Amino acid sequence: MMNQRINLDHSATTPLLPEVKHAVAAALEEAGNPSSIHQDGQRVKRSLEQARKQVAALINAKPEELVFTSCGTESNNWALRGLIAGNKRKGNHVIISAIEHPSVSLAVRRLESDGGVQVTILPVDRDGMVLPEDLRKVMRPETVLVSVMLANGEVGTVEHIQNLAAIAHEQGAFFHTDAVAAVGHIAVDVKALGVDALSLSANQFYGPQGAAALFVHEGVRILPLFEGGGQERGGRSGTEAVPAIVGMGVAAEIAARELPERMTRLAALRDRLQDGLRERIEGLRVNGTSDLRRVTRSGAPTQPAADDPPTNFGGARRGLVGCAAAGPVEDHGGVRLPHNLHVCIDGVASESLVLGLDQAGIAVGLGSACNSKAMRPSHVLKAMGLTDDEAKGALVLTVGVQTTDEEIDRALEVIPTVVRQLRSITALTARS
Amino acid sequence: MMNQRINLDHSATTPLLPEVKHAVAAALEEAGNPSSIHQDGQRVKRSLEQARKQVAALINAKPEELVFTSCGTESNNWALRGLIAGNKRKGNHVIISAIEHPSVSLAVRRLESDGGVQVTILPVDRDGMVLPEDLRKVMRPETVLVSVMLANGEVGTVEHIQNLAAIAHEQGAFFHTDAVAAVGHIAVDVKALGVDALSLSANQFYGPQGAAALFVHEGVRILPLFEGGGQERGGRSGTEAVPAIVGMGVAAEIAARELPERMTRLAALRDRLQDGLRERIEGLRVNGTSDLRRVTRSGAPTQPAADDPPTNFGGARRGLVGCAAAGPVEDHGGVRLPHNLHVCIDGVASESLVLGLDQAGIAVGLGSACNSKAMRPSHVLKAMGLTDDEAKGALVLTVGVQTTDEEIDRALEVIPTVVRQLRSITALTARS
Repeated sequence: MMNQRINLDHSATTPLLPEVKHAVAAALEEAGNPSSIHQDGQRVKRSLEQARKQVAALINAKPEELVFTSCGTESNNWALRGLIAGNKRKGNHVIISAIEHPSVSLAVRRLESDGGVQVTILPVDRDGMVLPEDLRKVMRPETVLVSVMLANGEVGTVEHIQNLAAIAHEQGAFFHTDAVAAVGHIAVDVKALGVDALSLSANQFYGPQGAAALFVHEGVRILPLFEGGGQERGGRSGTEAVPAIVGMGVAAEIAARELPERMTRLAALRDRLQDGLRERIEGLRVNGTSDLRRVTRSGAPTQPAADDPPTNFGGARRGLVGCAAAGPVEDHGGVRLPHNLHVCIDGVASESLVLGLDQAGIAVGLGSACNSKAMRPSHVLKAMGLTDDEAKGALVLTVGVQTTDEEIDRALEVIPTVVRQLRSITALTARS
Repeated sequence: MMNQRINLDHSATTPLLPEVKHAVAAALEEAGNPSSIHQDGQRVKRSLEQARKQVAALINAKPEELVFTSCGTESNNWALRGLIAGNKRKGNHVIISAIEHPSVSLAVRRLESDGGVQVTILPVDRDGMVLPEDLRKVMRPETVLVSVMLANGEVGTVEHIQNLAAIAHEQGAFFHTDAVAAVGHIAVDVKALGVDALSLSANQFYGPQGAAALFVHEGVRILPLFEGGGQERGGRSGTEAVPAIVGMGVAAEIAARELPERMTRLAALRDRLQDGLRERIEGLRVNGTSDLRRVTRSGAPTQPAADDPPTNFGGARRGLVGCAAAGPVEDHGGVRLPHNLHVCIDGVASESLVLGLDQAGIAVGLGSACNSKAMRPSHVLKAMGLTDDEAKGALVLTVGVQTTDEEIDRALEVIPTVVRQLRSITALTARS
């Protein structure tokens, strides 16, 4: 058992649940094309529509509002291109936040450089929060689309999407949210959030890679990204990846059922990891939303403890996420993803930490999963105002449904040891 | 055994090989993100690169010339958009054939209606062949791209891609071929064909849905369709669908190994079905390329038998495909896909035939898989000059590696019976 590797990198991709593997394997036996009008096609078609219902239920959408895609990146690229191209009459101005995933930020940059689209980037505060008043300031009559992520997969911050979407709608703009990092980890309700489009990906909630979706509110005009056979009601041509989509459906159903328990349990594991690392490692800062904000928001303001710097996560043990999940949750804005811990550790470099921990049997994340090869400070941390030096030792630690208490115990032994080793090497190098 | 359903609809999608299912199931156990720098990511990365080598070997490409996508439709849309956007300086004129899949034809129509691209549609002859002299006539200095499919999945015609690509290159245009219906069914060699880009999809050669690829010749400039994390050397952002891609690799390796035997055996089954149906059903015409053309091309001209109408497939028993596979095959142009049989049956409607055969336990295709819900005469048959009336009773019958002699025997009993029943109902309806 001591030699089993520990996965604290659930932000890159989540391992599949056993039920999901089983469903995908069964679907592989049934290979057929859902567009075929004969029985073999129609049986596969029913599996596809069953998955659509399961995924729709997870986010409180109608099945017909859900279009399957191949990955979160496709969903984001399509949402941006498709909503802008489909609503040119409204205008050519797009607003995104400074901490969007590259599949949003680079997609709008491309539209900008191709000509015809103007882009405004919304700043975030030290916790990575987009402030509604900042959005209000930059809205224009010709703003056609606002895209702000529901949660940031790196620092875990959950944005005030409900407020932001309402502001966009006041001016007649559409609102898209990249919920890839959020769905399956916190309750997501497209109707309560009031969004026009929402991206989600199975491989972020214990479903398979190769299945994702875009929710598009009924009546919202969006042009397709792929032309072709007209699958997915014309929204996304191409033969559907049925086995992966069936797996996504099962993962969604399990997420919907287990979400409250999952959130409470994962937050407890994460909190223990966080508190343990803070005790054991000097010069470790926790990034992302502080509890304070959420508590204040809910109308029960609590003074931070004296030793709680405002950017840190002061009261995780007060049950932030468990309590948020208990009531009717419409907007998690201001909380942090329950399974996420983002730290900066002084005197060590991220990549050395990731590789050192890897050798010691622990997988952790360097930053944004899709960016992990780029050895430069994360654009998210820069946007949050961290200096290059502060961002240098950044680490994303994410627990998952298979994480055990024993794994947290071992991580609390191993991580401080590896940090000490790396620091002593750095000290040695600096001296010589 | 008599109650087992018979699959004669391999053009819609191919069932998975047992080895492929096994490989996908194993990959599902290994879920990790190939972009992660730690061991768990790097192990998945190696599986991905192994699949890239396997698929590249099947088409004689370099692994680095292969970019994984989610489906043939994505590959085609990307090839067209990406090559045109990446080479605007050359010009804005695009040439495609009249029998392209909608993922090609509608993609260029969209580019045309968005403005900036001019499209010329190449006619085909009665067999569905694009004539090289027709391409030469419409080439312009500003032609940036020519896209002609390698083989048509509906009528099975294999085009003279080598000649067509050479003509495009004479004028400095790029050449893309949609080889989705061809790869795994005939030998495909990107270097011998001389193409700049080639689309292929795993679910057409006994691999899983959700994995496909675009070959892009090294040095050819193509802009991505998805912006984002820069996966696939920046060609296609988005977390890769590793389990499906691993399955695609295994399917490619098996196809490469078994292709000559597969072609010979499937052509024999198809020929027996064709000959049997011609004997048993009056008013049945076989569409697609005649043998004659191929034999002539290979330098060993053979006179057609007196009863061989020029548009039909006169001498399948002469071993057309087996012999083509035996030597070094650079261009199958003029032959028909070995597993394909496309017929028109007088006095019955396609959809009645598909549904009647479905009830009798045989799955067959209505036409282009991606179009199968559209109850109108196929654009392919129209382009070949068939009248609406001639095209009405069109049927695509495709055998596969799991097809048995017994299944062909049973199909030869059932299909004529169903045709007789449908014709008697039609006669009854006409009389009343």
